[in-house]
Amino acid sequence: MRALVNGSPPRLSLDHPTPVRKPGEARVRVRMAGICDTDLQLARGYMGYRGVLGHEFVGEVVESDDAAWRGARVVADINAGCGRCDDCRLRDGHHCAERSVLGILARDGALADELVMPERCLVRVPESVSDDRAVFAEPLAAALHVLDESGREPVLILGDGKLGLLIAHALRSAGVEVVLVGHHQEKLAHARAIGARTMLEDQIDVQRDSSSVVVEATGSAGGLDLALRLVRPRGKLVLKTTVAGKTEVDLSPIVIHELSVIGSRCGDMRRAVDALAGGRIDRTPLIAARYGLDRAEDALRHAGSRGTLKVLVGP
Amino acid sequence: MRALVNGSPPRLSLDHPTPVRKPGEARVRVRMAGICDTDLQLARGYMGYRGVLGHEFVGEVVESDDAAWRGARVVADINAGCGRCDDCRLRDGHHCAERSVLGILARDGALADELVMPERCLVRVPESVSDDRAVFAEPLAAALHVLDESGREPVLILGDGKLGLLIAHALRSAGVEVVLVGHHQEKLAHARAIGARTMLEDQIDVQRDSSSVVVEATGSAGGLDLALRLVRPRGKLVLKTTVAGKTEVDLSPIVIHELSVIGSRCGDMRRAVDALAGGRIDRTPLIAARYGLDRAEDALRHAGSRGTLKVLVGP
Repeated sequence: MRALVNGSPPRLSLDHPTPVRKPGEARVRVRMAGICDTDLQLARGYMGYRGVLGHEFVGEVVESDDAAWRGARVVADINAGCGRCDDCRLRDGHHCAERSVLGILARDGALADELVMPERCLVRVPESVSDDRAVFAEPLAAALHVLDESGREPVLILGDGKLGLLIAHALRSAGVEVVLVGHHQEKLAHARAIGARTMLEDQIDVQRDSSSVVVEATGSAGGLDLALRLVRPRGKLVLKTTVAGKTEVDLSPIVIHELSVIGSRCGDMRRAVDALAGGRIDRTPLIAARYGLDRAEDALRHAGSRGTLKVLVGP
Repeated sequence: MRALVNGSPPRLSLDHPTPVRKPGEARVRVRMAGICDTDLQLARGYMGYRGVLGHEFVGEVVESDDAAWRGARVVADINAGCGRCDDCRLRDGHHCAERSVLGILARDGALADELVMPERCLVRVPESVSDDRAVFAEPLAAALHVLDESGREPVLILGDGKLGLLIAHALRSAGVEVVLVGHHQEKLAHARAIGARTMLEDQIDVQRDSSSVVVEATGSAGGLDLALRLVRPRGKLVLKTTVAGKTEVDLSPIVIHELSVIGSRCGDMRRAVDALAGGRIDRTPLIAARYGLDRAEDALRHAGSRGTLKVLVGP
């Protein structure tokens, strides 16, 4: 099958082995995949991952143990835990020590004709949600996960890239007040269209604009210093940006202001699909371009060019 | 009066102006003061503080508005808030934007014959608690503050200096299981004497020894990387070390393992005095040396020499 295999640089393989389904797993034909900044970081060597890239997708089950899944249009929790440990049994398995993660860790990803995932990770997509919308389920789940820290409090988001805009979407769709801070008027306009307040980063006044909940979603190491200075005493900084390697940062505000810095990764896919089905906010304006899988290398390059929003890859 | 005035280097002044008491403040004659790592950092320029050093003390009230305080032996919350803002009215004022902090920010400190503090910051010391013990109230309050994050969970403490040992004392006195990790067998022995498990840092196995609650108390920037790797997924890292300036650190574990990194500064002085009065654990073995105020410069140098535990300065 066709698959975008990570390497330096990542290459489209035309004869990649079709993934083999283990008991309890479903084989899924990919209908649409999305490219995210994590893919770009993996392509630069992050985590040493060398498999097929891609973890945002909507697909159709072509083979499964449980007949009920066959033919279903699905998205999936990308964390495939062992199913037996405490984290898998009592929680969501996102921190299972033996987990594989679709397109990120020990499991070939979605920028391919097919993938396999445990059936228990699958979430059915209602007919009312088109592929163009369903493909946002995974990043939307991660964005909605911010609510688990912020509750209903107003949130200041740093970063007007894909991630920051999606978090603004997620929080606005939950009725939370949002201020989005970025560098690009045309991107901030997306956020204003959904009722967020926006601000250019160079207009920030750290005293005036501080917030009890700040989300760092700039995607770069440099955002952290400003983020830490924008959190009010005893407030929370939710970290969404994964930065590989060492970062230089002044951490003294954490102690002086007794801040909580909280890492936030994947979210609940069911909640995301419910939000998509609710349909209050349309994310398709965030789509920057579409490519066929044959042009996956071009798609990745496009996604990596500065300021690009969501690049989708169809069959 | 005599006072150790910060500068490069800090100097003992013999004719420093006696501090002037404002309405609501008490003038306190210092009976005993302690030197902490923050004093050493301030002496190196941290926060640009240029007043009298010292914030750990026990003293005697010589002048006050409220006659009930006169003659009382006291310790004090070192944060002198405005008394009017939300943080002062609803909480402890530790994050009042207009606060002064004894010996740290806009308020002359305790390495002097006298100091002034708002009466509302004072806490009376019971007769049963000697000066040698009462002088530990401030750092003990900060150490006990870790309990506000850890609850009753077992805690791994990184750092066997003054701070780490005091936190071990505080948690053990509250019946919490403690593992103390350090570099010095003779210091770790202090912790074993109070029922803590101990470990040399070079014997740590990050997998085997990970903990849901880790306290970073190494006093140096270098401790943070190891601390982050020792926290279990979704666990807490309590930051006690204030590091001035930029630190180079790999922050990716925060996001990947969804950690909470929580800054922890000053604590509740009443709780500390209660713990001292309870007297379950004797901290006086941590006293490394005593100096008269006339030799405060020597005392500071001694406190700054590698591996020194608590240096006290008496009148």
